[in-house]
Amino acid sequence: MAQKYYIGLDIGGTKILGGLFDENCKMVKRSKKSTKSSQGADVIVGQICKVIDDLLEDSLDGKLVAIGAGCPGIINSKEGIVVFSPNMNWGENFPLKEKMEKKYKVPFFLGNDANILAMGEYKFGAGAGCKNIIGIFIGTGIGGGIIINGKLYEGAVGAAGEIGHTIVLPDGPLCGCGSRGCLESLASRTAMQRDILSQLKKGRTSVITEYMDKEDKMIKSSHLKNTYDKGDELVIEVVDKACYYLGISVGSLMNVFNPDLVIFGGGVIEALGENMMKKIKITAERYCMPKIFESCGFEIGKLGDDAGLYGALSLAMEQ
Amino acid sequence: MAQKYYIGLDIGGTKILGGLFDENCKMVKRSKKSTKSSQGADVIVGQICKVIDDLLEDSLDGKLVAIGAGCPGIINSKEGIVVFSPNMNWGENFPLKEKMEKKYKVPFFLGNDANILAMGEYKFGAGAGCKNIIGIFIGTGIGGGIIINGKLYEGAVGAAGEIGHTIVLPDGPLCGCGSRGCLESLASRTAMQRDILSQLKKGRTSVITEYMDKEDKMIKSSHLKNTYDKGDELVIEVVDKACYYLGISVGSLMNVFNPDLVIFGGGVIEALGENMMKKIKITAERYCMPKIFESCGFEIGKLGDDAGLYGALSLAMEQ
Repeated sequence: MAQKYYIGLDIGGTKILGGLFDENCKMVKRSKKSTKSSQGADVIVGQICKVIDDLLEDSLDGKLVAIGAGCPGIINSKEGIVVFSPNMNWGENFPLKEKMEKKYKVPFFLGNDANILAMGEYKFGAGAGCKNIIGIFIGTGIGGGIIINGKLYEGAVGAAGEIGHTIVLPDGPLCGCGSRGCLESLASRTAMQRDILSQLKKGRTSVITEYMDKEDKMIKSSHLKNTYDKGDELVIEVVDKACYYLGISVGSLMNVFNPDLVIFGGGVIEALGENMMKKIKITAERYCMPKIFESCGFEIGKLGDDAGLYGALSLAMEQ
Repeated sequence: MAQKYYIGLDIGGTKILGGLFDENCKMVKRSKKSTKSSQGADVIVGQICKVIDDLLEDSLDGKLVAIGAGCPGIINSKEGIVVFSPNMNWGENFPLKEKMEKKYKVPFFLGNDANILAMGEYKFGAGAGCKNIIGIFIGTGIGGGIIINGKLYEGAVGAAGEIGHTIVLPDGPLCGCGSRGCLESLASRTAMQRDILSQLKKGRTSVITEYMDKEDKMIKSSHLKNTYDKGDELVIEVVDKACYYLGISVGSLMNVFNPDLVIFGGGVIEALGENMMKKIKITAERYCMPKIFESCGFEIGKLGDDAGLYGALSLAMEQ
């Protein structure tokens, strides 16, 4: 019988990753293109097609069965519509599933990117064997995904899991979403960058100035890691503060969800790893009920950058 | 065929309510006893039996099929064990199901009280037709229950739904659970009582002094209602502050759960009703993502004090 293939896509604000998988979930090829999000929906679709075409370039010894994809924003996964995605120029209610199925003549399944990350870790990574999982992904922003009784929980309009927009500090810093004091405004890489730059402006010194881009003042996760490891006082202070807020938020959510496992991922966690996990855990324990804390594991995701591809694969295979 | 009967029990820290239901879910008799919680597990069990015996006193024209019960604390619902209940003297891991089944020879099902309240409203009250519901019950403490895809969500050790112990104000007031700044420490009747008494001590005046018990300084929900309606400045200030924190907490949770419906209940809400709901909703909207807010209903529970009995009935009938 001919081999079956699946494609998993991780559509981000800056890049699109793609993986071609065989029916044993082995990735046999990968591809990557820039998203060109600022140029609008048609260009984004074109870039997605380039990734798919690249993956399918060598004629397959078999048959493409389905495509799965994760994309930021509020997703209507039933109809495959990008309802609302503030960081990408899709416009409102973009019918991505319809467009892709018309072109490729195979089923196309769409989900929220952080939800898909959580699914990837649940099915193929750190979450194996657990039923109730909170996934929290810390990078430019903070995303989340919730697995309940072994299934992704998407909520009433597909917007569940917005852990980055739980309120940790009422009347705290302004968040991209318009609220104040969201976790994302306190503990994302963007929040840490803001806090470090504001302290530098006040005259504090830090070795991070030797790492960061002189022009756009961008602070990458790797810069945070290198300077944290060097013992830089300002960076440690800012990262530790982020861990404190992450710990409150996670401890608080644990009291509501009583999960088996919390999985941490995203660029910031991949860079700073156990340093952050230790601190997050200490604060979470302070704010979480003992019986709930004792029964819950804390893990760093095992799939790294590939979590989105594997999550999208699981979406494609499940349907 | 002989009629079938079910018993629903609402076991609280101060009183035990019981209802006898026929198989059409009609309550045909009710009973109430004090819990005598301070006297320990054997006495509590004795009081529960008094309620059941009272309900069964007139020989039934039919057969008792099952008993359902809600009880505060962490409940292992599978085994019917009260794992941990800080406000009642059960001790740890009390096997209530085993004791009751031995005595009454019918299946006995146990759940967390606030979870059971949410189930009652879902099955028989304000939640009809919705699938994903947050129930929040504001009284002496603050309890919660979560319905996901039409089923009660209990979490890894049966402790899910502790909405009263989500952190709203890091380093806020000390909470009964040992943390600081939990919603319960900011917006329960007990928290409002603490804030009113502390302001009175500072010399502020309020008509509530004419209502509250002179000796134990207990402020009941009805006192809050009467003085709020009279326009008492201190009471309005304290109740509005509680609504502000409730709004933050609910808005924040909505971002994670994306529910169809949030149901509010408990003594404080039953007394102050729409006055509080309006204010809670205004703040929740400020902190919640618009797409999530628009798709979510806000309702006051319809069953009042009977929500626990109907929830326990649904537990008994479902199994």
